[in-house]
Amino acid sequence: MPREITGFSNPLVKRVRGLREKKLRKREGLFLAEGLRILTEARDQGVLPEMLFLASGARPHPLAEQLMAQVEAAGGDVILTSPDILGKMSGKDNAQAVVGVYRDRLTPLPALDRAAAPIWFVAQAMRDPGNLGTLLRIGDAVGAGGVILVDDCVDPFSVETVRASMGAIFTQKLAQASWADFLAWLRAGPGQLVGTSLNTDFDYQQPRYQAPAFLLIGNEARGLPADYEAACDLLVKIPMMGRADSLNASVAGAVMAYEVLNQMRRG
Amino acid sequence: MPREITGFSNPLVKRVRGLREKKLRKREGLFLAEGLRILTEARDQGVLPEMLFLASGARPHPLAEQLMAQVEAAGGDVILTSPDILGKMSGKDNAQAVVGVYRDRLTPLPALDRAAAPIWFVAQAMRDPGNLGTLLRIGDAVGAGGVILVDDCVDPFSVETVRASMGAIFTQKLAQASWADFLAWLRAGPGQLVGTSLNTDFDYQQPRYQAPAFLLIGNEARGLPADYEAACDLLVKIPMMGRADSLNASVAGAVMAYEVLNQMRRG
Repeated sequence: MPREITGFSNPLVKRVRGLREKKLRKREGLFLAEGLRILTEARDQGVLPEMLFLASGARPHPLAEQLMAQVEAAGGDVILTSPDILGKMSGKDNAQAVVGVYRDRLTPLPALDRAAAPIWFVAQAMRDPGNLGTLLRIGDAVGAGGVILVDDCVDPFSVETVRASMGAIFTQKLAQASWADFLAWLRAGPGQLVGTSLNTDFDYQQPRYQAPAFLLIGNEARGLPADYEAACDLLVKIPMMGRADSLNASVAGAVMAYEVLNQMRRG
Repeated sequence: MPREITGFSNPLVKRVRGLREKKLRKREGLFLAEGLRILTEARDQGVLPEMLFLASGARPHPLAEQLMAQVEAAGGDVILTSPDILGKMSGKDNAQAVVGVYRDRLTPLPALDRAAAPIWFVAQAMRDPGNLGTLLRIGDAVGAGGVILVDDCVDPFSVETVRASMGAIFTQKLAQASWADFLAWLRAGPGQLVGTSLNTDFDYQQPRYQAPAFLLIGNEARGLPADYEAACDLLVKIPMMGRADSLNASVAGAVMAYEVLNQMRRG
């Protein structure tokens, strides 16, 4: 049976609010996702929240009722609370009507099945949570396998990243590795490492990409370190016709990924 | 000569801080841009700020010194102030060392020279400032002419949009129009109106795009209204291989624009 929580000072409310901070997410191994659409998406991927919070009062949406039953059947907690408290949890004024607390979803690099998808993203020191969420969403759109986080990337389980991923946090794999460990893993199997860079004139439409293609996206401000570029099988340049010398990191990822996808669609 | 301001309660500081609000930006016809790189970019486009704020104390960067002289020569104000006050102005803790106050840059639609560029974006009810800024940055990268804002779009001169544009706010044209006025203007000259939609199976790589191509990007949550889609010369679909049914609005704009650019590069 759902239980009800009405006080802001309730320890569980405090604990869940705490998941907006990286330190506490890490300690608990949990993260927040919000919105019926994303939670239903997760369920369709076989992922249920450990705790499900809904606004009490109004009769829940039929999809929310279904989710409540499934979470309870799986031994999770269903908790009714006020819209205000839901808002505090997600840090949004206009709170989504449902908030889920999920076990984090990192895959150990050796467990990643590179043959499962033709495209993978490798994000190097990606610092912006919106960029990472958008990259996950792009990965879903192009049928990529997931994102491998290299160096000091933003936490993939922040509220902002989960929100920007529009559910792709549940459909894309996520792994974290040092550059050395990533390279060792990559070179132990098939895979083309493709970097985008300004330090080349090789147009990104020139090469024939091969699956699995690992698309390496450098840090937003600095791009890729020189030795990372040197380790790539292909270093390519997206043409820039204007004054600017770079694209937003996730946009560059999208342009690269659609080129690879388009080549593969043509056979 | 530069003058110095040291107090948070100085009326000019208050006025400039006020430019972080849309209402006051509109009333004054001014907006804020920050960072030496972006302000230099603007200068290279022949655009100088009416007011230039720099941190007092440390000797300014040579580029900043140049900019100070140019702003003064053009009759603008150069004001030295504390890093704290600069931070309050831009709403950022780690303030950029320079903040410029610029006259807003809307071009009346009839004054837009459509022949000046092969690609134009048309943003319909775009609500996210980061998306609009990113779209401007993409426009610069593909050599587009600018962005036409249709319906109730986010203010293009918000601090967030200017920041995300990475200087493209100064290289891309911006116009605002009702849908009816836009269509009337469009049809009075050459131009292909291209919408992206889920309501078609026509792959975005199928058609031969023609300059000037007007790429219509729908609202982030709702996409394009049906009658807007009906008014398009071409309605195309970007393939989606995963669970999600859409891309982030600016990402969709980038994928479309690079396809058009790539076709034009091939001749």
